[in-house]
Parts: sequence; C-alpha cells; structure tokens
Amino acid sequence: MVSRRQWLQALASLAAGSAWTQAWAQAKQGARKTGHLVIVGGAEDRVHDRLVLRRFLELSGGPLARILVCTAASGDPEGSWKGYAPVFADMGAQNVQHLSILSSSDANQPAVAEQILAADGIFLTGGDQRRLMERLWETQAARAIHLAFHVQGCTLGGTSAGAAVMSRAMLAIGEATRRPQMDTITLDIGLGLLSNAIVDQHFNERYRLGRLLSALALRKDLLGVGIDEDTALVVERNKAIEVVGSGNVTIVDGRRMRTNSQELQAHDRLEMMDVRLHVLPAGNRYSVAPAAAQDGASPQRTPSAFLETLKLLVEPGPIRG
Amino acid sequence: MVSRRQWLQALASLAAGSAWTQAWAQAKQGARKTGHLVIVGGAEDRVHDRLVLRRFLELSGGPLARILVCTAASGDPEGSWKGYAPVFADMGAQNVQHLSILSSSDANQPAVAEQILAADGIFLTGGDQRRLMERLWETQAARAIHLAFHVQGCTLGGTSAGAAVMSRAMLAIGEATRRPQMDTITLDIGLGLLSNAIVDQHFNERYRLGRLLSALALRKDLLGVGIDEDTALVVERNKAIEVVGSGNVTIVDGRRMRTNSQELQAHDRLEMMDVRLHVLPAGNRYSVAPAAAQDGASPQRTPSAFLETLKLLVEPGPIRG
Repeated sequence: MVSRRQWLQALASLAAGSAWTQAWAQAKQGARKTGHLVIVGGAEDRVHDRLVLRRFLELSGGPLARILVCTAASGDPEGSWKGYAPVFADMGAQNVQHLSILSSSDANQPAVAEQILAADGIFLTGGDQRRLMERLWETQAARAIHLAFHVQGCTLGGTSAGAAVMSRAMLAIGEATRRPQMDTITLDIGLGLLSNAIVDQHFNERYRLGRLLSALALRKDLLGVGIDEDTALVVERNKAIEVVGSGNVTIVDGRRMRTNSQELQAHDRLEMMDVRLHVLPAGNRYSVAPAAAQDGASPQRTPSAFLETLKLLVEPGPIRG
Repeated sequence: MVSRRQWLQALASLAAGSAWTQAWAQAKQGARKTGHLVIVGGAEDRVHDRLVLRRFLELSGGPLARILVCTAASGDPEGSWKGYAPVFADMGAQNVQHLSILSSSDANQPAVAEQILAADGIFLTGGDQRRLMERLWETQAARAIHLAFHVQGCTLGGTSAGAAVMSRAMLAIGEATRRPQMDTITLDIGLGLLSNAIVDQHFNERYRLGRLLSALALRKDLLGVGIDEDTALVVERNKAIEVVGSGNVTIVDGRRMRTNSQELQAHDRLEMMDVRLHVLPAGNRYSVAPAAAQDGASPQRTPSAFLETLKLLVEPGPIRG
C-alpha cells in the first residue's frame, strides 16, 4: 500500500526530475540567464531601512517572488528561519518558504531540488560555512542551485557564512591575525558562483584585512573581496557591481604583487609588494562598460587597474549541474 | 656680580653659537651628511632582544656615541628618562644624557642647541606629538635638530609620538575609524625630516589602516607609512630603507588613486580606487639602486610601483636651520 506521503514524494520527484531535465538541457544548449548574486557581509539590518534585504527581494522579482530562506549553515535552523520570516513578510514578500537542509541526504531529496528550481530568490543564512558545504557538497541541491542561478536567473543571496560559500575558493578557517601570515588560513571549496575571488565578511568590523591578505598569499591568482556588515556586494553577470547597505566593499588585488609566499622558510615573514586596494562605499554602482563607468560618485576617469579587477569579479564561474 | 651659573650659561651660549654658526655655514655651502632616521612604531622591546634600540645605537656610532634621550613628548619626562637610561646602559652605551625640554623657552636655551649639535644620536620618546611640537615649534632646538641631522649626520630616532613628528604632515589627532572617513583626522606640522610621507604608529596593533587612508584622502600627494609596535623603519638618505624589529612596515601609496575626497558632500562616503599597498616585514632591506634592489627575501624583480614609492620615501626634506 502506497501512503499519501510516498505518493506526494514520488510526484515531487517526478516534478523535480522534469524541472531538472529541462534546466539541464537548457544549460547544455548554452542557455544562460545568470541571476544576481547578493553577497552580504553579515549582520544586515532587519529592523530599520533593511537596504540589503530589500535589494535582494527587489532583484528576486519583488513581493510576489518565490523566496527560499536556506538555513543549512545554521546551528539553529528553526531559529534562523523564525528570524527572517517576519522580516520578509514585513517587507511585503508574499511567497517565502523555509528550505531546511540538515544533512546531505536532505540535500539529495528530489523535493528539495524542485523547490530550488522553482525559486526566484534563494537566501543563504549565516552560521558556519563548513557546515553549509558539508550538507550541500556534491548534492542535487547544490546542482539545482547552479541551474537555478545560471540558467533560470534566480537571485542568490547569502550572508556571513552564506557569503563565504559564494566563491569557489572558500575561507574555511582563518585566524584574524593582525598582520598577514602564512599557515593561518584553511581554504576549502565553496559553491563556486563567483569564480575569481575569495570572499571574507564582517570585514572592517573584525579587522580582517590581515586575514584576507593571508588568503591571497596562498591564492595570488584570486581577488580578495572583503564585505562589511550590513553591506552587500551585488554582482550582475559580466556587467556591473553595486555596493548596497551601510559599509564598504574592499577589493584586494594581489595578482601582480611580489611576494615571498612561495619560498617562505620557517620563521620567515610574509612580504607583499604592490597589492592594489579598492575601497568602494555603499551607494555606488560600478560598470565594466566604459561609457557607463562613471556611475559612481566621482567624475574622474576610472583607473584601468580597477576596471580590470571589476571584469574578473563579474565573470561567472562554470555551471556545475 | 656674575654667578657661576650665569658664567656657565654664557659660556654654553657662546659654544652653542659657535657650533651653530659652523653647522649653518656648512648647510649654506650645501654640505649634507644626512643621518639615518629610525622611526619606531611604539612599544619597542627594551628587555629581550632590543633589536630596534640596538640598531639605533649602532647607527649612532655604537657604545661611545653621544646619545640624547629627548622626553619633550612625555607627560612624565623624568619617568620616561628613567625608563630608557638603564636600557641604553645595559646595551653598553656609555654616553647617554637626558634632554629635558618642558617648554619652548627651554627649547630656545643655547645650552640645549649645543647639546643637540654635539649629539651622535637623538632619541625622541613617546607621549603626545602635539605636546612635542608645541615645545619645539620654531625654536632653536628644532633648528638644531635639523642641522644635526642634515649637516652633521646625527641619527634621529623616535618612537610613537616621536615617530609621528618625523614627517612634515603630522597626524595630530585621528580617530581609529574602521573604514576610511573624511573629517576624522587633524593634520598638523611635524619636524619635517621625512618629506613625502605621513607616519602612523602602533599600526597593525591598533588597526589603523582606516585612519591612515583617511589621512591620505586629505593628502593624496603623500605616502602613508604605518609602523607596527617593536618595529622601526630605518631611512638612509636617497639610498635604502630597512625594517627592523618584530613587525611590519606598511606603505600605502594613494598618489594615483581615484577618490571622491575633494568633492564629498555631507553623508557621501569616501571612495578610494587603485591604492597601492606594500607590506614589508622586519628583517628586510630595500635599496633604490636597481643592482641592489634584491636585498629583500624574495628573488623576484622589484615592482616598479614599489621602487617609485621607495625613492620618494628616502628623499630627505629641506633643512630648516
């Protein structure tokens, strides 16, 4: 005898399978309608102006958008969901659901993939980025997030731990050392939606420049992106970035630095010469198109070093379907 | 009736006058034997390896050098002197004197100028850089320091407040804001021995990058020099710098940045694009001569952006005699 629950699961599975098949077929045909990333440095305002969450909701499509709040990073998923649900409701969002993923087995449920593929916006809450990746690593949910983002144009938001997983090279563990130091950082693999960067959050609040430089000493090829609390870096594929909220986004570009990081002996100290720093305050938009490069506050010419950095930052990673 | 004290003062005045006249005549003939600067980020080790103070003593000429410990920045000059005297003695220095300057009237005593002009090394203790400059501003003592440094090759050391006064543009007051901000910094005039820089100390310990960037927003033409505690930036005129001690020297070069600092309206936020950052650890020497540019730990080519910065940093300011 098949229970009602089993029936529903089977139906969900079929439905997911079909959404999946469709999205994957589109991906293979090269269809890309990459959504926006809304990468939040943690502690976004939920009570007053809610600039960051409003922008996420707006980019997802507004009040009628199908929003998922994914609490897989959290040690208290129910508490986390109960924190966000009334905030989204208060902003007028009418279709907000909790995506609870407590294990990779959960993350392989067809119903979960179905939910993800049907979403207009997915918001990854804070917690621990390692927990989040343990639960999502090589699951259908992770693949569905890629298809939703790359093929269906779903907006993907994440705060704190949810921000750390946006990049492929993910800052998993790292002491906030005062000075950049070797061997203080453990990098792991994140969701990989941002292909050329390492994201750090609570950036100026926790004085994390030393930590981000330490990460770049390991991965000189990547950009360091430090996002302040109550601040979002919005990434629009191949086009522009925006800084939203109340703080800064700091981009650290060490691709041309001279460093001794590869030849360090024990007790040697890390040297880094010619690192480029870009301090971008909230309220500005930076476009890669030369004609539109003046969206920011300053009418001066955009430095080529920054334009180059910007182009790398808005380049989407490969689809992992 | 002339007292013995008055006699001695008159003799000292004559002697000072003569040393002064001689040095000033040399200066006017273009004679320059510029000494080293030993600019210390505060809290230098006085108990264990004393790397920073040892280097200062060594550059001053070693155990027999005539050393002056100037406590004019200190709120407790006697206490400050009593802190340093046994340390220098313990390092083998045999000719160390206290230069107590409690007012600008003290700083105009001929005996003070005489002491300064006879010194091989002068060490400015910590305290408050505004107090130090109030006492030295436009005095014979300040002029004597310039002549001693520029003409007689006296080594000039300074820690914390004594480091802040090394540059012409001096960070007088400045909140350590998390993010760079306009209107949080008051610049004043220092001794001006370092002509193209603003010095900040306790740099990584007090997370002062935000503050140093705020200062550069006001003076885009200058280099920001952040020196860690127990660390000295040694400047050798037109030749090289050394980093001595246990921390880093961080050089921030915003000369080519794009910033909105000059057009900021109230509530606008500061933007800074293309700032160059050089993180230089203790133990390294950096020379402006291309052939010797590889003194540092790394055998790679020295980036031209850094060489350019370095040349500016080792350029001595004008003599103010």
